[in-house]
Amino acid sequence: MSASERIWTAALLVIGDEILSGRTQDKNIAQLATWLNVQGIRLAEVRVVADKMAAIGAAVNALSAGNDYLFTTGGIGPTHDDITVDAIAAALGLPVVVHPDARAILEKHYATRGGLTEARLRMARVPEGASLIENQMSGAPGIRIGNIFILAGVPHIAAYMLEALTGTLQGGLPLLSVTLGCWVAESEVAELLRAAETGSAGCQIGSYPFFREGRTGANFIIRSTDLAAAEACAADVTARLAALGYEAVDGGI
Amino acid sequence: MSASERIWTAALLVIGDEILSGRTQDKNIAQLATWLNVQGIRLAEVRVVADKMAAIGAAVNALSAGNDYLFTTGGIGPTHDDITVDAIAAALGLPVVVHPDARAILEKHYATRGGLTEARLRMARVPEGASLIENQMSGAPGIRIGNIFILAGVPHIAAYMLEALTGTLQGGLPLLSVTLGCWVAESEVAELLRAAETGSAGCQIGSYPFFREGRTGANFIIRSTDLAAAEACAADVTARLAALGYEAVDGGI
Repeated sequence: MSASERIWTAALLVIGDEILSGRTQDKNIAQLATWLNVQGIRLAEVRVVADKMAAIGAAVNALSAGNDYLFTTGGIGPTHDDITVDAIAAALGLPVVVHPDARAILEKHYATRGGLTEARLRMARVPEGASLIENQMSGAPGIRIGNIFILAGVPHIAAYMLEALTGTLQGGLPLLSVTLGCWVAESEVAELLRAAETGSAGCQIGSYPFFREGRTGANFIIRSTDLAAAEACAADVTARLAALGYEAVDGGI
Repeated sequence: MSASERIWTAALLVIGDEILSGRTQDKNIAQLATWLNVQGIRLAEVRVVADKMAAIGAAVNALSAGNDYLFTTGGIGPTHDDITVDAIAAALGLPVVVHPDARAILEKHYATRGGLTEARLRMARVPEGASLIENQMSGAPGIRIGNIFILAGVPHIAAYMLEALTGTLQGGLPLLSVTLGCWVAESEVAELLRAAETGSAGCQIGSYPFFREGRTGANFIIRSTDLAAAEACAADVTARLAALGYEAVDGGI
């Protein structure tokens, strides 16, 4: 396997009772997945756990060991339910320390906002040995410790932290995709798709049915790190659909 | 602990490359969480895995053992990437069989839609010993095997399956919540919230900051199985905020 064929994987750990209670619709999974694709890294697994030390620690150990990178979102604010840093430090067997640069960032940010209180200083606490991830949005930085990236839970703050990380992580070839749509019940073309995938090395075909305008249809996503291979597979699917009397729509429906 | 105090938990396993690729925004987590709350069951953990036998099997075994109930969404359609039934059966050490009632449902559903092809018959396959979950939307039923509930990935189809299960699962007291909003930076009131939670047995307070209209605010969600306790805690938080000169808004902002 050449270096370019190595697949780099990441996991995401979403930390927060608000997701598990149904109160908040998660947006970090799709946001991180999309960002990772551009970095040439594949999101391999996601877990969502409650604001509990043991649950966070067990997930951190499993996911950081099983993937090249682990991202976490949530639980890094100033309140009592923000225990992510403590839980990750405990899982790694590290003490929690105040990072001097984070303290300086927060002192500057809060200089005109009432000063750096004890609660706000909580946001400068990191597992010992960690580095910071810039947050141009709201002051409090994200945290990197080993292969773990600790991000904010608010999606638009997490987005700024990802922006700061763009291009800094080693990845492989991005996973590319070609989409075809068709007004057909996927059950009509299941064998066709299986045959096309089997005949196209390095391509996976996903089938995503929908019901719209009173009609049944499906989009077929052909994924590969080799765009030419994905396009050839799409052409094969298109020809196979045409042979059954169905028209494929480039780009999906 | 009385029977009413036992906490019933569920896990959700979301199966699908389309979530991990970022193509599809998950809606099943919030939908299931909301439904479970009404049944008196708490969503304790979520995992998202790819369409891979080993990944599905490992998650199924861990989550079904660790919770009263496990729900899965995705991967029960007719195409080659729909491997949920096979993966769960393998994880449980069970053979896959065609369920006669599922076959009958599909024969009826497809009688006017081209008949029951081999691909469509895939949707009648279940782990041996399973029962069916009615699907009034699109024919193909969900599947129950032991404490595992196998649902469709399309959220509005999963919703019909949950509707069929409503009131049939044993649960405990529903987790109730009272919400307060306040135009305050959560870092200003972190100690206040911690003190209020410590003083209110059986209540958890979650703090959810936001930035809106150029101002900083937060909603505080007080959760308890005892509504009177949650309301008393909310009154305490309101009084503590007022003492600092902040007005709490009932119901949140």
